[in-house]
Amino acid sequence: MGTKGENTKREICREAAKLFSKKGYKDVSMQDICNATGLSKGGLYRHFGSKEEILFQLISKEKRVFEDIEQGKSAVDVLENLLKVYREDLEPDVESMAYALFEYASMGNGQVPDSSNTEDKRYWHKLVKYGVSTGEFNDVDPDVVMDSFLYAFRGAAMWRRVLTFQEETLDHLTEAVRYLLIKDYGEEKI
Amino acid sequence: MGTKGENTKREICREAAKLFSKKGYKDVSMQDICNATGLSKGGLYRHFGSKEEILFQLISKEKRVFEDIEQGKSAVDVLENLLKVYREDLEPDVESMAYALFEYASMGNGQVPDSSNTEDKRYWHKLVKYGVSTGEFNDVDPDVVMDSFLYAFRGAAMWRRVLTFQEETLDHLTEAVRYLLIKDYGEEKI
Repeated sequence: MGTKGENTKREICREAAKLFSKKGYKDVSMQDICNATGLSKGGLYRHFGSKEEILFQLISKEKRVFEDIEQGKSAVDVLENLLKVYREDLEPDVESMAYALFEYASMGNGQVPDSSNTEDKRYWHKLVKYGVSTGEFNDVDPDVVMDSFLYAFRGAAMWRRVLTFQEETLDHLTEAVRYLLIKDYGEEKI
Repeated sequence: MGTKGENTKREICREAAKLFSKKGYKDVSMQDICNATGLSKGGLYRHFGSKEEILFQLISKEKRVFEDIEQGKSAVDVLENLLKVYREDLEPDVESMAYALFEYASMGNGQVPDSSNTEDKRYWHKLVKYGVSTGEFNDVDPDVVMDSFLYAFRGAAMWRRVLTFQEETLDHLTEAVRYLLIKDYGEEKI
């Protein structure tokens, strides 16, 4: 696909993200995405076979944990890169896909967040093991760190739709991970 | 209100909790609650003026932080009591009100979770300050602990509706709080 095709694809993703973020998954149709992008049905389907396919494209995030570790980065740097990827989803100007994904999963598609969990687990286990081996991290159960962080992020992504969300909450969630993982992190700060 | 009235009230709460948990807030009517309890409309309204009032009753949880501290309990014990209250909401056999509250809040009632947040904040700040003063807790930012724990619990309460929820996740969420707060908690465990 040429540059023009790539641009159209990006434009579709941008407009679909706005719609999913605002209306969830159920109430967005391919027609809505046509209307928002100005594409014909044929033009849209040339790039994405379904609404589902667009959602999947939007929720797939590249995480560089394995590459970063292979390159010999410090565990703390690998962690910061990973936190950044999650965090990007919750920046104020970003359209979060959490609610759309929740709706999609509640339509009998629970296997989608499930398999995303399985993938997350691979990253977190690898990272914690690595950080313990370099002496940078506490020898803490990776599932404790991962579950508390991921559910907090998912919770924030959902609840900030309906309550007054303080921007510093994002800092608190990532800060908790640092406290849990990085050796003497609390002490350094005092 | 006599014992019979109290029993009816409890029965209403029990049945309403089942309905809210299953269907959320919007799709439950006072008529549904009548049907589930076998009460007439008059009988139901004698106890609760609205669906809203029943939801409020269901989400109000007594937290004994201030009393526990006044009684000179150890900070760790006060913490365990507090964690237990939150945790009860997520036990497998308990009807969680999280989704109903989320729907209710999304109907323009964001002030309800907001004011519940403000109350939670009072408990957590008081507890962390107390634990630091007794030397049991790390001198960590109470908002870091509170936000990461509360959003994780809210996240778990929502997402477990749609994905495969591992029961040990609950343990992980409370364990993270202990690691963050209790001095040398990690080391004791190794």
